[in-house]
Amino acid sequence: MVLRIPFVTKNEHKVAEANIVLKKYGVEVYPVNLKKIEVQSESLEKIAALAAKIAYRKLRMPVVVEDAGLFIDALSGFPGPYSSYVYKTIGIKGVLKLMEGISDRSAKFRAVVALAYSGGVKLFKGVVKGIISLEAKGTKGFGFDPIFIPEGHAKTFAELGTEEKCSVSHRGKAFEQLGKWIVENKDKLIPEFRASPRVEAQ
Amino acid sequence: MVLRIPFVTKNEHKVAEANIVLKKYGVEVYPVNLKKIEVQSESLEKIAALAAKIAYRKLRMPVVVEDAGLFIDALSGFPGPYSSYVYKTIGIKGVLKLMEGISDRSAKFRAVVALAYSGGVKLFKGVVKGIISLEAKGTKGFGFDPIFIPEGHAKTFAELGTEEKCSVSHRGKAFEQLGKWIVENKDKLIPEFRASPRVEAQ
Repeated sequence: MVLRIPFVTKNEHKVAEANIVLKKYGVEVYPVNLKKIEVQSESLEKIAALAAKIAYRKLRMPVVVEDAGLFIDALSGFPGPYSSYVYKTIGIKGVLKLMEGISDRSAKFRAVVALAYSGGVKLFKGVVKGIISLEAKGTKGFGFDPIFIPEGHAKTFAELGTEEKCSVSHRGKAFEQLGKWIVENKDKLIPEFRASPRVEAQ
Repeated sequence: MVLRIPFVTKNEHKVAEANIVLKKYGVEVYPVNLKKIEVQSESLEKIAALAAKIAYRKLRMPVVVEDAGLFIDALSGFPGPYSSYVYKTIGIKGVLKLMEGISDRSAKFRAVVALAYSGGVKLFKGVVKGIISLEAKGTKGFGFDPIFIPEGHAKTFAELGTEEKCSVSHRGKAFEQLGKWIVENKDKLIPEFRASPRVEAQ
């Protein structure tokens, strides 16, 4: 039996990346078309936890939310929690322009996955350190993937395949934690799906 | 009698600017130390309206909230609603770097003032068009004031005095609207302050 959990996101890449990692735990997430309420905060933890809480109140079944961001050291953590807004406005070109002439190119991608259920909200975190490349490379993934080279690698996230990306990525690590937790706590979660009118276990 | 209304902000400049404009309407705002809850949105209207609603629920008396941002045309509206986060991270230097070599320097400052009271939430808006200067100038004001030259002027907001800035600024215009509305609707508002334990009319 695969435990299927709703995931509040419009980003198909995130769903695919999560499921690559969750498969071995017998868990699958599926996108639900629910407005994700995100508060302005410099803490991904706060943003994800509150969004999950609100989604749980609406769906009344266990639900997963994820918030992630690229934090560039030389830019005081910019674009951080506002990475998707920054991607849509100044984009990769803008970030590379901001980094022109800056020798310290260290950055990290962070992800926080929040699972809301009757017991409250559980947070699972993942971080990957790396550098901002000198130019955009690769076409896979999404967002700032073409300019992020994870530590110990020579390629950007956008040059790696999804599986390879997930084995080192912030998101991969966070969903890994979620998968482990679910396996250990299945007894708590499964009855909540049974109680729900939208039971989706298969 | 001056009608004193709580204003949810930690920014003393905003309080001073609002009061310069409100004085002639017999209204004064004073800062209240309440956490301002701001949702992530590209709409200042949504951010201000929701923040005011939440503040009203806590204070149980009429309350004012303001949200403002600098919208740069060539950067697809960046930094927009996230201006204060962008100011704290990449700052004026970062925005000037993003604008290097860009000839279209048009921008606007927008402000939305939200008044929450028993009748709901009223929004008052102000916009000022201008350009991003080639370098930072002036020491008055706050935020991106040193790089914004309002239309019809030769000086940046940070080179103008507070009174002069308010006579053309987005914030000045929005609070002007608020002042007019309060004068016309005093009969609705004053009883709400009387009913409140924290009445502050003097």
